[in-house]
Amino acid sequence: MSTRILGLDPGLAILGFCVLECENSTAITPKLLDFGIIETPAHTEIGQRLCTIYTDLHTLVQQWQPDRVAIEKLFFYRMGNTILVAQARGVLLLVLAQYQLPMVEFTPAQIKQALTGYGNAEKREVQEAVARELKLDRIPQPDDAADAIAVALTAWFQV
Amino acid sequence: MSTRILGLDPGLAILGFCVLECENSTAITPKLLDFGIIETPAHTEIGQRLCTIYTDLHTLVQQWQPDRVAIEKLFFYRMGNTILVAQARGVLLLVLAQYQLPMVEFTPAQIKQALTGYGNAEKREVQEAVARELKLDRIPQPDDAADAIAVALTAWFQV
Repeated sequence: MSTRILGLDPGLAILGFCVLECENSTAITPKLLDFGIIETPAHTEIGQRLCTIYTDLHTLVQQWQPDRVAIEKLFFYRMGNTILVAQARGVLLLVLAQYQLPMVEFTPAQIKQALTGYGNAEKREVQEAVARELKLDRIPQPDDAADAIAVALTAWFQV
Repeated sequence: MSTRILGLDPGLAILGFCVLECENSTAITPKLLDFGIIETPAHTEIGQRLCTIYTDLHTLVQQWQPDRVAIEKLFFYRMGNTILVAQARGVLLLVLAQYQLPMVEFTPAQIKQALTGYGNAEKREVQEAVARELKLDRIPQPDDAADAIAVALTAWFQV
C-alpha cells in the first residue's frame, strides 16, 4: 500500500509544493509525481494573490488526491512579512480543512535533522539529501520546490 | 439610489458583521438590515474555524449582495494572537476577492473620529453614536456587532 504526501513550503510570493508517492517501506525510493511553485506577484492586490493560492491548491489536491500533507512551520523574521505570510497560511489551512486532509508540521531544524542527521545543516546539504533520497540526477528547482520535497520526506521518514 | 455596505470587525474567535442600506444622502437614516457575529470556539481546530468563517461570510455576501465592504484595520497587540487573527483575515480577504467586492479599511482612531468627532473617544461613546445615527432605542449587541456597524457608518460618512 502506498501513501501520497503533499509537501508544502508556505509563502505568499512563492509557495513550494511537491507530491510524493511513498511505498510501505522506506527501503523503496518514493516517486516524485509532481513538484513546483505557486507564484503570486508582489505588485498584485492581496485578495487576488490569496485567490490564486486558493484556486491552485484546490487544483493540486483534486488532481493528486493526497492522503496527507506535510508543511514547513512558519518562521518569523519580519513583522510586516509575517502578517502577509500568515494571511496566505490561513488560506492554505482553509483548503486542507475543506478536504479534511491530515496535516503534520515540521520546523526547519526538524527537516534538516531528518534529511542530514543534524539540525544545523546548510540549505545545500538538505537539497543534496533530497536528490539522493529520490535518486535524482540533479537537485529539483526552484529552491522552494526542493524545500517542499524535504518536508514531505521528513513526514515519510517519520512513519 | 442606495448603497449596501457590509461592515466587518475581523477576529478569529468573534467576527462582528452588519449590513447597512444607505440612501444617497447622509440626511436619511441608514437601514440596519442585519447584524451579528460569526463565532468560532477556541477549542476547535484552526482549519475548522477558518472553514466556518469562509462558509458564513459566503452565506452573508450571497444573502445580502453588498455593494462594498468596510473593515476595521487589524490592531496588533500580542504576537501569537496576531498570527491567528491574520490567518482569519486572509480567509476574509479571500472571500471578498472571490466576489470582487471593493473594500475600505479604517483604523480604530479613524472610526472614533468619524463617529464622535475625536480620535480618542471611549468605546461607549462610539456605541452611543452608532445607536443615535441609526435612531435605535438601544446599543446593538454584542459589542463586536456594534463595532462592525461603526466601521460601516465610517465608510458611509466618507462618501
